[in-house]
Amino acid sequence: MTASRIDKQIQFLNEIDKLKTINRATVLGDNSRRENSAEHSWHVALFALIFSEHAHDDVDLFKVVKMLLIHDIVEIDAGDNPIFGNNNARSVRTIEKKAAKRIFRLLPDDQAQEMLNIWNEFEGAKTPTAKFAKSMDRFQAPNQNLMSGGGTWLEYKVNYNQVEKRVGSKIAIGAPELWNWLKPRLKSFLDF
Amino acid sequence: MTASRIDKQIQFLNEIDKLKTINRATVLGDNSRRENSAEHSWHVALFALIFSEHAHDDVDLFKVVKMLLIHDIVEIDAGDNPIFGNNNARSVRTIEKKAAKRIFRLLPDDQAQEMLNIWNEFEGAKTPTAKFAKSMDRFQAPNQNLMSGGGTWLEYKVNYNQVEKRVGSKIAIGAPELWNWLKPRLKSFLDF
Repeated sequence: MTASRIDKQIQFLNEIDKLKTINRATVLGDNSRRENSAEHSWHVALFALIFSEHAHDDVDLFKVVKMLLIHDIVEIDAGDNPIFGNNNARSVRTIEKKAAKRIFRLLPDDQAQEMLNIWNEFEGAKTPTAKFAKSMDRFQAPNQNLMSGGGTWLEYKVNYNQVEKRVGSKIAIGAPELWNWLKPRLKSFLDF
Repeated sequence: MTASRIDKQIQFLNEIDKLKTINRATVLGDNSRRENSAEHSWHVALFALIFSEHAHDDVDLFKVVKMLLIHDIVEIDAGDNPIFGNNNARSVRTIEKKAAKRIFRLLPDDQAQEMLNIWNEFEGAKTPTAKFAKSMDRFQAPNQNLMSGGGTWLEYKVNYNQVEKRVGSKIAIGAPELWNWLKPRLKSFLDF
């Protein structure tokens, strides 16, 4: 263990402090301000712990938590791109990939590779572990909007069908019972 | 799985949203504002993941992460009590214990008990897992202060010996090499 290994680890840990300044489209439950991506990452990790009984047997729950803790770190360079905003998905993806390399490579090589692998698996959304992690990430935001009385939805003039298509479908893949719980609540809120 | 189990889980997850409004004595690295306890919990969970190689073999790393994600939830009722502030430790402890029961008991009984056990183990600081988790929690704040150029220390007129006694001793128990890294940096910053 050399001092320079710790130095690199600290460089990374200090760099990601900036995630606390990246604001999302969602607001806090009390409507006082926008939620930032660091506190969102904390919250959604707890969604995964509490809703772990909805994960299939082949889900690695610790890896889910790791994914959720690091999934938004790329926003330090790329910013938050709200799901119902006007983003060019392909260009966002390019910027985020570059950001992942820049930020995770502050770490010692072995850890940089491990983090990149976890981030790529999450983004790929193909493995049971990534699918469950995605479903937690997708669940937290509409639940936040229900709590705060609208949030993003009002700003982006979102209707129920859009939420079902972009959000519900992802929740249904990873945690179908949670989508069954959320669906009628979204319907009665958004179909006005 | 009844709907009411999910309802209880959501009640808890919505309640802990309030942790995002509890400000700590530390500030962000860019000095722009106080750090809140939700984003601190996210950050310190990442310290544990990145510094896991410093944990003894008998440390359950996933449980460390769980501990760090929930350790400050009691502050929703008790507020943040800075380590160098004027707090009555015994009365803070009583309030925090009551808060843990109120908040974790929003969950279904089995999960409430699990969370209370994890929180109590962390607070007890007796097991290798809790000792490592404590060392991560203690490490993040002075590192945050070094990054931001002082933070709490200036406000509370803290000197090096106080930090060594209250903070360094705890880091040294769980992760001695990290204390060796931090010590000279604290010394040169605080001995002015």
